[in-house]
Amino acid sequence: METLSENKAFGGVQGVYRHASAICDCDMTFGLYLPPQAETAPVPVLWYLSGLTCTHENAMVKAGAQAFAARHGIAVCFPDTSPRGEGVADDGAYDLGQGAGFYVDATQAPWAPHFKMWSYLDQELPRILDANFAIDPERQAITGHSMGGHGALTLAMANPGRFASVSAFAPIANPTASDWGIKQLSAYLGADQTSWQRHDASVQMRESGLDCPVLIDQGSDDQFLDLLKPEALAQAMAARRQDGAFRMQKGYDHSYFFVASFMEEHLGFHAKALEQA
Amino acid sequence: METLSENKAFGGVQGVYRHASAICDCDMTFGLYLPPQAETAPVPVLWYLSGLTCTHENAMVKAGAQAFAARHGIAVCFPDTSPRGEGVADDGAYDLGQGAGFYVDATQAPWAPHFKMWSYLDQELPRILDANFAIDPERQAITGHSMGGHGALTLAMANPGRFASVSAFAPIANPTASDWGIKQLSAYLGADQTSWQRHDASVQMRESGLDCPVLIDQGSDDQFLDLLKPEALAQAMAARRQDGAFRMQKGYDHSYFFVASFMEEHLGFHAKALEQA
Repeated sequence: METLSENKAFGGVQGVYRHASAICDCDMTFGLYLPPQAETAPVPVLWYLSGLTCTHENAMVKAGAQAFAARHGIAVCFPDTSPRGEGVADDGAYDLGQGAGFYVDATQAPWAPHFKMWSYLDQELPRILDANFAIDPERQAITGHSMGGHGALTLAMANPGRFASVSAFAPIANPTASDWGIKQLSAYLGADQTSWQRHDASVQMRESGLDCPVLIDQGSDDQFLDLLKPEALAQAMAARRQDGAFRMQKGYDHSYFFVASFMEEHLGFHAKALEQA
Repeated sequence: METLSENKAFGGVQGVYRHASAICDCDMTFGLYLPPQAETAPVPVLWYLSGLTCTHENAMVKAGAQAFAARHGIAVCFPDTSPRGEGVADDGAYDLGQGAGFYVDATQAPWAPHFKMWSYLDQELPRILDANFAIDPERQAITGHSMGGHGALTLAMANPGRFASVSAFAPIANPTASDWGIKQLSAYLGADQTSWQRHDASVQMRESGLDCPVLIDQGSDDQFLDLLKPEALAQAMAARRQDGAFRMQKGYDHSYFFVASFMEEHLGFHAKALEQA
């Protein structure tokens, strides 16, 4: 593993690291914020999955998570949103290929050789954190924004017991019924929609729900409401009697200004759940 | 004046605006964060001057000021660091020309027609804020990072009474004795060093000081310590018996992670001074 940068931040260290990924069969880069508490003992980790077009870097510099991660003694991991590099398939559109992995394991050409973000986050990157940093693998939480909110919710629902808490900012909530979903699931997984179902948070919420508390924030002035379909998730959460909250935040849009505005509350939510984990 | 974007953030509005500048003789862009308190009454304003290579945008998305501006009910203005556009002189180097205005009024070719950042911030932009936004011009404070810390300190020392408080993150502290200064002051102001003196914070601190409290933060692991020359400013502040604090922050570098780490304290410092203004 190679250290690309380390900057002191809020008493801890914001690092950026690169490693050879066996699952994605290419080099992968991630950001990891370690709070000052990690100097003396392993700390819990919050996964922050990012949205379309993002790398590991966007949320790391714009979402304002480190201040509250330091307050609560929680590490935050910022993975990339797809495999990258020469030899990795791509598409001219912003919403397919590099920067748009959609947190699935692709089975279709040309994506299948590298686009394995589901398994990368489910299996490989957790092991790499555990082996290299003062992280307590027994205490994990997960959040994400937009496509990353979709990833956080679906990964958590497929892994009962792994996460103490789950949250999302403006998640892609119902991709099997949205142009942010149908295009990508078709491309990565093929036309048989059976394989899509585990990658739809509203479907999974209806079928199984989460075994931990969940917090969803959605801006009422989000320019992508028609693509995100938050009403499907809100309906499913209520029907499931899911422990948690779906909050419509008046006047907020889809930007990092929205994410940053509620980061303190999301970190507080996860900190409370992790303390009890 | 044209609105380029407005995003709700921390209950207020982060806007970006463009206007025709008479002083710089070109269009200028700035960011302005208005806290929720501005909906009901004019609020104080904190100027945030940015460093080399930055536009209005960098600090606006990376410095994390809005959370604390909203807490204290303070607007934050993020000006650009130079005139820009076709017909505006530039240089291939990152530290001269566009993105590197150095907060002076250029008198030398080819810079003199547009590079008037001193007068732009001293006179024009304050009037534009006052005319268009719920800002109280009687309550101003100023801060900045690197080249912007230099600008904040020198503008404040040349304007007794204007600012309730001044702070800086890793300011270029002694430009008349640094390669971050000699090159630019020569280019913009010419070889006669008499005109340089008002643009050196350490010189001005020795000669006149500030009539308000000052807070300086400097990272001990800043990669540009040799260019910033913080020891000159620390010496001058102590010799002047300047009301304020010069803090060496162990392990921090020159990045926005450093700036963000101490933003809460800087906003709190300015809020206290502005309450008493």
